[in-house]
Amino acid sequence: MHSRRHIKEALKYFEKLTDREHAIFEAGISLGAIFHQLVGMPVKLEKIRELESALSNAFSSQPFRVRTEIRINAERIRRGLTEPYDYGVINPESLDVEVVVEYGYARVKARLKWIDELGYPLMYVEEVTIRGI
Amino acid sequence: MHSRRHIKEALKYFEKLTDREHAIFEAGISLGAIFHQLVGMPVKLEKIRELESALSNAFSSQPFRVRTEIRINAERIRRGLTEPYDYGVINPESLDVEVVVEYGYARVKARLKWIDELGYPLMYVEEVTIRGI
Amino acid sequence: MHSRRHIKEALKYFEKLTDREHAIFEAGISLGAIFHQLVGMPVKLEKIRELESALSNAFSSQPFRVRTEIRINAERIRRGLTEPYDYGVINPESLDVEVVVEYGYARVKARLKWIDELGYPLMYVEEVTIRGI
Amino acid sequence: MHSRRHIKEALKYFEKLTDREHAIFEAGISLGAIFHQLVGMPVKLEKIRELESALSNAFSSQPFRVRTEIRINAERIRRGLTEPYDYGVINPESLDVEVVVEYGYARVKARLKWIDELGYPLMYVEEVTIRGI
Repeated sequence: MHSRRHIKEALKYFEKLTDREHAIFEAGISLGAIFHQLVGMPVKLEKIRELESALSNAFSSQPFRVRTEIRINAERIRRGLTEPYDYGVINPESLDVEVVVEYGYARVKARLKWIDELGYPLMYVEEVTIRGI
Repeated sequence: MHSRRHIKEALKYFEKLTDREHAIFEAGISLGAIFHQLVGMPVKLEKIRELESALSNAFSSQPFRVRTEIRINAERIRRGLTEPYDYGVINPESLDVEVVVEYGYARVKARLKWIDELGYPLMYVEEVTIRGI
Repeated sequence: MHSRRHIKEALKYFEKLTDREHAIFEAGISLGAIFHQLVGMPVKLEKIRELESALSNAFSSQPFRVRTEIRINAERIRRGLTEPYDYGVINPESLDVEVVVEYGYARVKARLKWIDELGYPLMYVEEVTIRGI
Repeated sequence: MHSRRHIKEALKYFEKLTDREHAIFEAGISLGAIFHQLVGMPVKLEKIRELESALSNAFSSQPFRVRTEIRINAERIRRGLTEPYDYGVINPESLDVEVVVEYGYARVKARLKWIDELGYPLMYVEEVTIRGI
């Protein structure tokens, strides 16, 4: 039976939320944070796997994140680059992020992904499960 | 009766969520975004009101935000500054943010605030209301 | 006669540089800072003048900046936006920044601007003048 | 004999600068960029070496950088952290960055480092050399 929650001193701030809602809230924070911290960051295209891994680990350190996978689409950065400016910066089109957050009994899997049809980096919830019951 | 929702093409990404959960998710995104975009930004201390107002307007442009109030505590930036470095950058201690998000029938008021007791910039939900019913 | 310099305790870190070089170095810092702090920031298109003014003031608070003008090109943000996502985030294409830095006897005017021919947000020095002599 | 310069189409923007000045300008850009992109980024303290390495590679992709070493001082992040918030974000105190930039015949080594005496993250030039002559 899983019960990962805020420390006692912080619980009073979250009385309005069920575990499920709390996990959804944290998943939203996570995606907003990743987008706004990373857009604009330079990328060395041939070292992109290493950067994805390090950033995924860095953001997974925030509370209640059990998995964070940040992928950066090199093709969507590379477009239109000119020598010797053969590098790029992370843009909204290039980010594909999956986070799994657990709070109390709830587990939420959320996603940040550029949706061509919308012309927009959408943040949404892919799955919510309640565990241990 | 209020009904502010994603466009038709995007609705399929949100089938897992009730309006209430959706508004909670968006409030989380909003606070994560504001924190990670703004920390590190320089502040001219005597023009802080103008900066708060412009940033509040900028972030309120994201979908479903009906109010965004970003306050920057000059005192918590000013500490320990030396001439001629008489300016500061926004740090986690200095931000106090209130967002109100509406999605469908739900309205969520959320907060980002440094809590001295926790030594942490806490993001939490202050109020959830369901409208129009 | 103008003589704006670092405080005594900091001067030892800058012995390698003439005033002219020092001002050029600070101008570079300024443009790098502005680009990487601002890319990704949401913009309310109808309040863009207010945001430009507040950000210009904020960044002009860094030492030795005598003028900072940040312009955001709404047209280059607006492209391809869909309702209700009728807002945008600052991208490299949309920034046009002019900074004037003075250090000691030197004055440098530098620019950050998207150059279509290069497909790149170029940072360069427009003018260097030595004053008071 | 080394001669790394902008492409022909961009050279007109840099007529005001000697190679030495140009390298100093680029070093300034580099440090301003690193500071403002990274402050606020979460850090998993036990994976800090991996993050330093990935970020150093990412920023070294910008033109004319021949070495970029980003170090993050875990001790200066860890202070005052409370369980379960056992992670931190990069703050101005924790960054120690060394960049080496080469433009044309000039080579510049610059540094970003928190100086306790100043209470300030100072950016300065440690060394300028002219090569190949």
